[in-house]
Amino acid sequence: MSTKQKRFILPEDEIPKFWYNIQADMKNKPMPPLNPKTKDPLKPEDLYPLFAKELCHQELDMENAWIEIPETVREYYKYWRSTPLVRAYGLEKALGTPAHIYFKNESVSPIGSHKLNSAIAQAYYCKEEGVSNITTETGAGQWGAALSYAAKVFGLEAAVYQVKISYNQKPYRRSIMQTFGAQVTPSPSMSTRAGKDILTKTPNHQGSLGTAISEAIELARTTPNCKYTLGSVLSHVTLHQTIIGLEAEKQMEMAGEYPDIVIGCFGGGSNFGGICFPFMRHTIKEGRPTRFIAAEPSSCPKLTRGKFEYDYADEAGYTPLLPMYTLGHNFAPANIHAGGLRFHGAGVIVSQLLKDGLMEAMDLPQLETFECGCLFAQSEGIIPAPESCHAIAAAVREAKKCIETGEEKVILFNLSGHGLIDMASYDQYFAGNLVNHELKDEDIEKNLDEIRNLQ
Amino acid sequence: MSTKQKRFILPEDEIPKFWYNIQADMKNKPMPPLNPKTKDPLKPEDLYPLFAKELCHQELDMENAWIEIPETVREYYKYWRSTPLVRAYGLEKALGTPAHIYFKNESVSPIGSHKLNSAIAQAYYCKEEGVSNITTETGAGQWGAALSYAAKVFGLEAAVYQVKISYNQKPYRRSIMQTFGAQVTPSPSMSTRAGKDILTKTPNHQGSLGTAISEAIELARTTPNCKYTLGSVLSHVTLHQTIIGLEAEKQMEMAGEYPDIVIGCFGGGSNFGGICFPFMRHTIKEGRPTRFIAAEPSSCPKLTRGKFEYDYADEAGYTPLLPMYTLGHNFAPANIHAGGLRFHGAGVIVSQLLKDGLMEAMDLPQLETFECGCLFAQSEGIIPAPESCHAIAAAVREAKKCIETGEEKVILFNLSGHGLIDMASYDQYFAGNLVNHELKDEDIEKNLDEIRNLQ
Repeated sequence: MSTKQKRFILPEDEIPKFWYNIQADMKNKPMPPLNPKTKDPLKPEDLYPLFAKELCHQELDMENAWIEIPETVREYYKYWRSTPLVRAYGLEKALGTPAHIYFKNESVSPIGSHKLNSAIAQAYYCKEEGVSNITTETGAGQWGAALSYAAKVFGLEAAVYQVKISYNQKPYRRSIMQTFGAQVTPSPSMSTRAGKDILTKTPNHQGSLGTAISEAIELARTTPNCKYTLGSVLSHVTLHQTIIGLEAEKQMEMAGEYPDIVIGCFGGGSNFGGICFPFMRHTIKEGRPTRFIAAEPSSCPKLTRGKFEYDYADEAGYTPLLPMYTLGHNFAPANIHAGGLRFHGAGVIVSQLLKDGLMEAMDLPQLETFECGCLFAQSEGIIPAPESCHAIAAAVREAKKCIETGEEKVILFNLSGHGLIDMASYDQYFAGNLVNHELKDEDIEKNLDEIRNLQ
Repeated sequence: MSTKQKRFILPEDEIPKFWYNIQADMKNKPMPPLNPKTKDPLKPEDLYPLFAKELCHQELDMENAWIEIPETVREYYKYWRSTPLVRAYGLEKALGTPAHIYFKNESVSPIGSHKLNSAIAQAYYCKEEGVSNITTETGAGQWGAALSYAAKVFGLEAAVYQVKISYNQKPYRRSIMQTFGAQVTPSPSMSTRAGKDILTKTPNHQGSLGTAISEAIELARTTPNCKYTLGSVLSHVTLHQTIIGLEAEKQMEMAGEYPDIVIGCFGGGSNFGGICFPFMRHTIKEGRPTRFIAAEPSSCPKLTRGKFEYDYADEAGYTPLLPMYTLGHNFAPANIHAGGLRFHGAGVIVSQLLKDGLMEAMDLPQLETFECGCLFAQSEGIIPAPESCHAIAAAVREAKKCIETGEEKVILFNLSGHGLIDMASYDQYFAGNLVNHELKDEDIEKNLDEIRNLQ
C-alpha cells in the first residue's frame, strides 16, 4: 500500500485565469473555414448570426495565445474546479505495469463531464450580448445536460435537439436536462425543415449528431434573439476546454512528473485538445518529446481512416465548410454506446496537427473499450462513460507496452465523464450483446466521394 | 457576483486520522442492545458470528472517544476525500436569504454517496480477519453499490439483497453493483427461509429494508467464512461516517465560520450522525448552542411520531433488540422515492440523543423535498438524491426563517449523494404523479402495539 499522495487539487487561487489558444503558436495555421456559397475564407462577422460575437472572434483568433477567462466564468468554474488529478495506483496494480498512470477526473463536475467548461463560457457570452434563447444538439446527452444547466445559471431559455436513439436509450439524460428547465426534442423532428426532409426521405430515422446540429441551427436562425451553441468540434469550444490541461500541467508539477504520453478520447476533439494542447505548447515551443494520442472508435475512424477534406459539420449543410479529417457528413456511424464519439469529422485545429505529425490517433474496438472500462471501475471505483473508456483503453495499451519494455513511462489521460447514466450500455456488454463494428473501405469511400467537390 | 472562496478542500495530510465515537462523551449512554432470547445486555462477543470482531467492539465502545482509522482505509479514503465543503451562494441567492448556507458534498465519492466511508472500513476489517464472503441488504442501492466496490477492492465476494421494488425501479444501481462484481438478488427471494416465509404469507411482496436485512443475515449465518455488513443504523457505521463532520469542522474553520444549525437527512442515522456528532461534541463538552436537525420523511416519521422502545432492526427478528425510536419492525412505509429513508427505526445513539434533547427532528412531505431538490439543482448544478432532498428542504425552511428575522445564521447540511440514478423519480415528480403520503395515528399505533412486549 503506497502512502504517497494520490489526488492533486489546486487551491482556488491557482485555477488558471486564461485559456490557451494553440492556434497562435502553431507553425502551420489551420486552413480557413469557407463560406459554402462564395467559397471565401470566413471572417468572424460571417459567424455573428449563429454565435455570440466574442465566440466568433475566439474561433478564428490566430494571434493571441492567452485569452482571459471572464471573472464570472471563473467564479462558476469554482463550483467544481480544479478537478482532481489522480494517480491511478489501483489500475497500475491491476495491470502490473511499471508505468505511472494519471487521470484528470472531469467526472466530478456537477453534470458529470467536462462539457460544463465550455457550456458555462458559451452561455455567459450569449447572456452578455443580450441573447435570450439558445439552442444546441446533443448525442448521449452530456453536452445537452451541461448546456441546460449553464442556460439556467444565466437565465436563458434552452432548446436541445437530442439524437433520437439516445433520447430513447438514455431517458435519464433527458430527465436531467428537463430538471434544469430545458426543452428537449428528439431529432429528427417535425419542428424544422431539416428534420421534416430527413423524416420524409427516411421514415423512422434514428438520428445523428449531424442531423441534430442542422435542426438546432435552423431553430436558432428562425427564432428572434436566439443563438446556436456547439459542444465540440469548433476551436472556441476546444479553447474553453484547455482549462483541463492547464490545471493538469500545474498538478503534474505537484506530483513531480511530466507526461510522456497524453491521451484523450476523440469525438469532435474538444476534450482531447483540452487535455493535450497546454502540454503540446511545450512540444511546439521547446521540443519536449511528448506523444499525444487521440482515442477514437474503430466504427467511426475519421482520424485513422478518414480523409483531410473540406466538409460540412452537419447533415443538411447549414455550417461553413471546414478543413478537417472526415468520413463525409453523410456517414452514418454504427450504434455504438459511446454516443459522444459518433461524429463524422474532427475539429480544424486537431486536423492540422494530425496532418503535421504533432499527434497520433488510435482506433479502438467497442469490446476492448468496455473491457478496459470495467477494469478501471473495479480498480479505481469510478464507472467511466463509454466515451472515456476509449481513453482508458488507449492508456491500458500503452501501459501494457511498459510491462514488456520495463519503462516507467508517465501516462496521463482525461477521464472526460462518468458512466452512471450509461449503465444500460454496461448491461448490454455483460449480456454479451455488444459487438465490434467492422467498417469496410468501400463504405468509407462512398461517403468521401460525395464530398470531394465541395471545396 | 461574489469573488469569495466557494469550495474548501483539505490537503491530504489534513484528512482526519481518527473517527469520533460520541458514545464516550455522552452523559447518558445509549441503553444496551439485548439478546432477544435471554434479554441480557449484549457483549461484543455476542456479535462475533455476524460481524468482524473489530466492528463488534466499536459498536459497544463507551470508553474511547477517538478510534484510529487504519492506514489502509485512510489510503482508500484518499481516492475521493476530503470531499468539498461548498458555500451555496447560488441557493442563497435563489432564496434571497441572509443565511450562510454550506453543504458537505459527499456526492463526489466514486459511487456517488457517503456510503463508501463505512463500506471501505467494514470490508477492510472483514478482510483483515480472513473473511472471504460478505453479505448485505440495500434499498435504493447506494449502500449496495458502495459495499460491492469495497468488496472488490479487498478481494471479497459480495452478495447483496436489494429491496425488490428498488431492484425493478432503479435498474442502473443493480448494474453498478454487477459492474463491481457483486451478486444481486431481489428481496424477498426464495433463497432464504426468511424470504420464503414472507413470499408464502404475502405473494408478490415488494420488499422492505427489514426483509432484506433478514435475508442477508440468514445468508451470512449459513455460509462458511461469511460476515454480514450493514449500511446504517448501527453505531459502528455512524462512527465511520464521522469522517464527514470531522472534515467539515476543519473546512468551516477555513471558511471562518461555525454552524448555528447542522442538518442531515435521516434513514438509520449514519449520515446524520456523521455530519453532526463532531460538532455536537462541542455542544456536549463546551455548551456551544448549535441546533442539530434530523430531516425525515413524513411517511416514515420514527423520530417525530414513533416511540422509544426495544425493537428488532429486521422483519424476521434475527437482530438483537435495540433501544430506539421506532415505528415497529412490521411497519410498511409508503413507496416514497427516498428508498434509503424507508426504515422503521433509528440508531441507538441518535435515539438517546433525541430523548435527551440534544437534537431535533423535522418531518418533510415528499413534494416539498422534490421542490427544494429542484431549486438546489437549478441553483447549484447538482441533482440531489431524493434522500438528500430532505436535508435540503430542512435547510431551506431554516433559511427562509432568516429572511423574516434578518439573521445571518450559518446553516450546514450534508449532501449525502447525487440523484443521477434516481432521475425516474424526478420524471414522476414533474409528471405530477407523486403525492404526500398521509399517515394515520392508528396505523402507527397498530405496529407499535405489536412490539411493546418484546423487551
